[in-house]
Amino acid sequence: MRSDQREVNELRKITIETDYVKHPEGSVLISFGDTKVICNASVEDRVPPFLRGQGKGWITAEYAMLPRATEQRNIRESSKGKVSGRTMEIQRLIGRALRAVVDLDKIGERTLWVDCDVIQADGGTRTASITGAFVAVVLAFGKMVDKGTIKELPVKDFLTAISVGVLKDGKEILDLCYEEDSQAHVDMNVVMTGQGEFVELQGTGEEATFSMNQLQEMLSLAQEGVTELITLQKEAIGKWSETIESKQSSKAAGK
Amino acid sequence: MRSDQREVNELRKITIETDYVKHPEGSVLISFGDTKVICNASVEDRVPPFLRGQGKGWITAEYAMLPRATEQRNIRESSKGKVSGRTMEIQRLIGRALRAVVDLDKIGERTLWVDCDVIQADGGTRTASITGAFVAVVLAFGKMVDKGTIKELPVKDFLTAISVGVLKDGKEILDLCYEEDSQAHVDMNVVMTGQGEFVELQGTGEEATFSMNQLQEMLSLAQEGVTELITLQKEAIGKWSETIESKQSSKAAGK
Amino acid sequence: MRSDQREVNELRKITIETDYVKHPEGSVLISFGDTKVICNASVEDRVPPFLRGQGKGWITAEYAMLPRATEQRNIRESSKGKVSGRTMEIQRLIGRALRAVVDLDKIGERTLWVDCDVIQADGGTRTASITGAFVAVVLAFGKMVDKGTIKELPVKDFLTAISVGVLKDGKEILDLCYEEDSQAHVDMNVVMTGQGEFVELQGTGEEATFSMNQLQEMLSLAQEGVTELITLQKEAIGKWSETIESKQSSKAAGK
Amino acid sequence: MRSDQREVNELRKITIETDYVKHPEGSVLISFGDTKVICNASVEDRVPPFLRGQGKGWITAEYAMLPRATEQRNIRESSKGKVSGRTMEIQRLIGRALRAVVDLDKIGERTLWVDCDVIQADGGTRTASITGAFVAVVLAFGKMVDKGTIKELPVKDFLTAISVGVLKDGKEILDLCYEEDSQAHVDMNVVMTGQGEFVELQGTGEEATFSMNQLQEMLSLAQEGVTELITLQKEAIGKWSETIESKQSSKAAGK
Amino acid sequence: MRSDQREVNELRKITIETDYVKHPEGSVLISFGDTKVICNASVEDRVPPFLRGQGKGWITAEYAMLPRATEQRNIRESSKGKVSGRTMEIQRLIGRALRAVVDLDKIGERTLWVDCDVIQADGGTRTASITGAFVAVVLAFGKMVDKGTIKELPVKDFLTAISVGVLKDGKEILDLCYEEDSQAHVDMNVVMTGQGEFVELQGTGEEATFSMNQLQEMLSLAQEGVTELITLQKEAIGKWSETIESKQSSKAAGK
Amino acid sequence: MRSDQREVNELRKITIETDYVKHPEGSVLISFGDTKVICNASVEDRVPPFLRGQGKGWITAEYAMLPRATEQRNIRESSKGKVSGRTMEIQRLIGRALRAVVDLDKIGERTLWVDCDVIQADGGTRTASITGAFVAVVLAFGKMVDKGTIKELPVKDFLTAISVGVLKDGKEILDLCYEEDSQAHVDMNVVMTGQGEFVELQGTGEEATFSMNQLQEMLSLAQEGVTELITLQKEAIGKWSETIESKQSSKAAGK
Repeated sequence: MRSDQREVNELRKITIETDYVKHPEGSVLISFGDTKVICNASVEDRVPPFLRGQGKGWITAEYAMLPRATEQRNIRESSKGKVSGRTMEIQRLIGRALRAVVDLDKIGERTLWVDCDVIQADGGTRTASITGAFVAVVLAFGKMVDKGTIKELPVKDFLTAISVGVLKDGKEILDLCYEEDSQAHVDMNVVMTGQGEFVELQGTGEEATFSMNQLQEMLSLAQEGVTELITLQKEAIGKWSETIESKQSSKAAGK
Repeated sequence: MRSDQREVNELRKITIETDYVKHPEGSVLISFGDTKVICNASVEDRVPPFLRGQGKGWITAEYAMLPRATEQRNIRESSKGKVSGRTMEIQRLIGRALRAVVDLDKIGERTLWVDCDVIQADGGTRTASITGAFVAVVLAFGKMVDKGTIKELPVKDFLTAISVGVLKDGKEILDLCYEEDSQAHVDMNVVMTGQGEFVELQGTGEEATFSMNQLQEMLSLAQEGVTELITLQKEAIGKWSETIESKQSSKAAGK
Repeated sequence: MRSDQREVNELRKITIETDYVKHPEGSVLISFGDTKVICNASVEDRVPPFLRGQGKGWITAEYAMLPRATEQRNIRESSKGKVSGRTMEIQRLIGRALRAVVDLDKIGERTLWVDCDVIQADGGTRTASITGAFVAVVLAFGKMVDKGTIKELPVKDFLTAISVGVLKDGKEILDLCYEEDSQAHVDMNVVMTGQGEFVELQGTGEEATFSMNQLQEMLSLAQEGVTELITLQKEAIGKWSETIESKQSSKAAGK
Repeated sequence: MRSDQREVNELRKITIETDYVKHPEGSVLISFGDTKVICNASVEDRVPPFLRGQGKGWITAEYAMLPRATEQRNIRESSKGKVSGRTMEIQRLIGRALRAVVDLDKIGERTLWVDCDVIQADGGTRTASITGAFVAVVLAFGKMVDKGTIKELPVKDFLTAISVGVLKDGKEILDLCYEEDSQAHVDMNVVMTGQGEFVELQGTGEEATFSMNQLQEMLSLAQEGVTELITLQKEAIGKWSETIESKQSSKAAGK
Repeated sequence: MRSDQREVNELRKITIETDYVKHPEGSVLISFGDTKVICNASVEDRVPPFLRGQGKGWITAEYAMLPRATEQRNIRESSKGKVSGRTMEIQRLIGRALRAVVDLDKIGERTLWVDCDVIQADGGTRTASITGAFVAVVLAFGKMVDKGTIKELPVKDFLTAISVGVLKDGKEILDLCYEEDSQAHVDMNVVMTGQGEFVELQGTGEEATFSMNQLQEMLSLAQEGVTELITLQKEAIGKWSETIESKQSSKAAGK
Repeated sequence: MRSDQREVNELRKITIETDYVKHPEGSVLISFGDTKVICNASVEDRVPPFLRGQGKGWITAEYAMLPRATEQRNIRESSKGKVSGRTMEIQRLIGRALRAVVDLDKIGERTLWVDCDVIQADGGTRTASITGAFVAVVLAFGKMVDKGTIKELPVKDFLTAISVGVLKDGKEILDLCYEEDSQAHVDMNVVMTGQGEFVELQGTGEEATFSMNQLQEMLSLAQEGVTELITLQKEAIGKWSETIESKQSSKAAGK
């Protein structure tokens, strides 16, 4: 039994609240248990210098935690005057993952800024961020389609992320809370599409290593979690869900 | 009539939700209409170098806005690598105001960090921050009293803040929303105690000036607003309200 | 009696030396007793990005102290790599105050940089800076009028600043020196026009509060001080004094 | 056939030159084809603050490229005043990987600084860095054992890293050069021990995704490469090779 | 004839005003023609980390220019967030030069901070800074001797600096003003003691070179200038002049 | 006898390896004994803002040391977030020296970036950098001539640098190694052309001074060293050697 009584393959309670903040084109408050992240998607009508004049768009992400999102207060990165390596790693991961399922050629020379701000942390903030950011991004693009700014939803597939790991006793588990995460020997973040393909895989032995068998077991748990998360995303994005599914079908048919 | 149908002396809808985030000693989500600020108070068991060895404590505040708290997305201060002058001004103001009503000699060599993070902005973020921060601070100190860490609530009086201003047509108004604020000729922030004394007064003509009469009228509106805010603070802090009132009485009697 | 034998409503000896440094368009050395500030106004033929193409100008100010302007040497802000919150607050105040009395529509797309460098500090450096900066600005604009760069002096009124405060014993005083300032319960900076209107009002209780009566008394002292300062400014700016007075009259008549 | 005529499972020419620079405790120049990295290990007699007083040591890594290690010159990170996200990610990866095979309890309160400086880049700089850094670390610890500073070599296993990927045509390949890397759909870095366990796995779809089958195929190629790299590491570390092998045996026996 | 009618070996008008600012232990306003520098010496009762516990002291210098000391306004280094290479070079030069004539063993564990702030620049600011800083340093040490903090003046010799150069027409000249400096082919700064020894020699061809003969001629002009400067320093430091001269004699005798 | 058995006028073993790194237009590994510096020259097809539109080019240099180039590991300047004063001084010196022998009018609006990265340090890194950088620059320009990008080699003369100094015992020596440098009373860097003219002269008494006689003796040693260095440079640059010599002749003839 896990510290919070969950089964090894059981997700925490996941909720996705849309239109959480009024200004952004897409805004979501996502909870993975006590982990709560505000994901805001903002549209900017220009692209970074390296893309100018190519007629395609860009998606970039930023990630931060409120100083007291954690048990101990952290110094603000704005006060320190620089962004930590951990933050950079996470925001690069979120942006890369989102770009894998968006057709950047179909959004014109625009940038989608995705801000993931953790207001309460209890493990799994990066996977909650990706899962929530996907919803915010779909809603922002959906608003653009409704307004006629772009012709069709440029989203090729669903995108979710979940953590898996190996506890000290060798047991593989799904969706680690902070207490589990801080004690795990192995920690892996899996980002997958609705089609069951991998977008990103980051497994790390924390002063430890893991075998091929453990890897297989973790990937299998991840797949279970991802299926549930996609169901919740579909509810959150409503009518846009079908559009994405139809793209999946045509893509599968075209294979 | 104002743009949102309020009377000149009418506050927006104010709500104060306590225990909003689970980790901080005191946590509040305060709303002044569409302006929403998370105010978290954290206790640290040491003081800044300039106070070490004096047996007294310190209160300091930090203020930030989520990038998309506003109509246009702002660049993160952590990405820019420095805190703006506006942010510094506001956080210095919040800290100074809180210190005016707390007896720093009674909290030992501890620092209270007060983080005000604006998740949605519609004018008056600094006054909402001060009003909410006061509640978070009382709750944090209350928790310390309950635990026996300190003997008594070191809070000498209530503390609230409200904005007043002069519109282009010369009309004085209370609690400006963003639309009003951006067009006002004069903008003044008033920080007051429950006893009706001033803690801080910051009035600014925006490429304009104001007369002694206008000043008097604005101060009078501010006093009306403050009275209402204190009523709401009392509800939010519950049992600690009486403790503060009794201090006020004894102080008044001792005068 | 005050520590330097002044009456409560008595200014320190004020001197204004014009053309102090040879390169700037306007240059002033102003002394408020032992507080000495060099105020240089420089004209730049372009405006910040947010104003480009609007045909109007801008005024911005920077403030600094020599490391040993004070009793204890301060670390240079250039060595620290960042400007302190106090410096930012002061330079924002100076710029805002100057913009309130200058008609920015009449200077074309130009920026006036006003540098206030404190070479010796004894309290009241921000009020001395504003009072001296006004003279430097008038001289710089005057030179532009004389050269035909602009048609008329774009200055709508006089501008001066003075500090007032409340000592521990409850006595209100005018123009605090450093010794008084460091002990005062309340410190207020008042920026006023030649017409007696407020441009900026910043009153702060230093771990203390102040009443409406104390506020009135301080404002009354400030008005006395401002009247004297304007007399000195008139001498310093010579022929431009009449131009400004005639604008005041026509403005008063037009009311 | 690949652009440089290699088989899909063929490594580039790998060389490891030890004692490359004279000052460091361990110094290596490693080449993966045209990718050349200087790996220097330095011993410092203290640990970072978070470890003080615990009697254990720490390993940390830094990574940089000479500005012209690449086809286009890059701006120095020292000139930019900050380290890029890419650099941070890589140096965190190197440090974490090394710590997984070193027994930090056996090195006392010391820090091993591992500097990986790329003097010429042609893809795979992070895997070359890890593979070379391991040798530099063993040599540095070996020197400490020879001097009697520590009792035994605190290295639990071999450590190597290699890149694998999927080309646009769907073919999986081993050890990507820059030309391949810049065109690959999937890029994965695999860090493994001499026992064939994973230390770190980082697979990324570059605006693409990958299937479970592709993952399996890539892992299988990685294992082939790792076996060859360990043979080269053994030659480079000479007598210390046996010590590590004997630890592997006893660990396997103890399982 | 030079642009300002001086002979090739003629200094500009040099003045040294002592006790210019009231707080520093030593304070000087030095003018080399229109170049004006405030040199303040401050005593701090501790040394930098690398000297702690050795019983000796340190002298360090900082140099800055007011933004409008020059014909064109320069951006403040505090606003830019970093000190320029030029500033660093100059302040390292000033500090090194002063340390060459001060007996650091005789001042205890103290640091002398020397701040050279250029309020008006017309060429030769670094040589004016060194020449003025020497006077400020002697006055600061003199005050310490008078107070009994140190036993004797720890100054071994006089120290002055002067610029020499070669104009485009090949003529060597002494003490270049800005106009000359900006056109010179060669620019050399010579720092010398009262005994005629070199402390520092920095000669630079500006996209040009110079011969041994030109070097000799420049050094000869420098020596003429130095002799005059020492006479002015002697007047400025009054009674301390003899103390330094007697040290020179005994040193010469001891050779 | 010197610590490494050299005569006072004897250089260490000097080697120059060309085409050391494959990407740069010019690349050199130069060794002065145990001091080893990689000098890479990169051509960029634009100039800094202050030169745009003038039809001429620019040369700029950057200098760095690997953290463990020295006996003690140095913190990376990229980690510190700023470049030290020493580094700035050196890179400004290298750039200035190179510009003195290059005809910037003949390279079009291009910038030559010269990166000097010290991989092993044993004194004299700046003189090795200049001597090696010259070769890298000639090779880069040579490649441009061969490609027809520019018409002729824009190099007017040879350029080498060497250190000289005075030991504690008063003996003048050539080409100081680190051990000598750290103990020397006087340290001078001399940059000279093939014609025997000075480009830069930087002599510094380290808490000491030096006489005219010592200066002459040091300059004479420097000239001996420079002659040898030029011979080695000629071998390294091969066919371009004659081109430069012919320019020297015509320049001498034209005098």
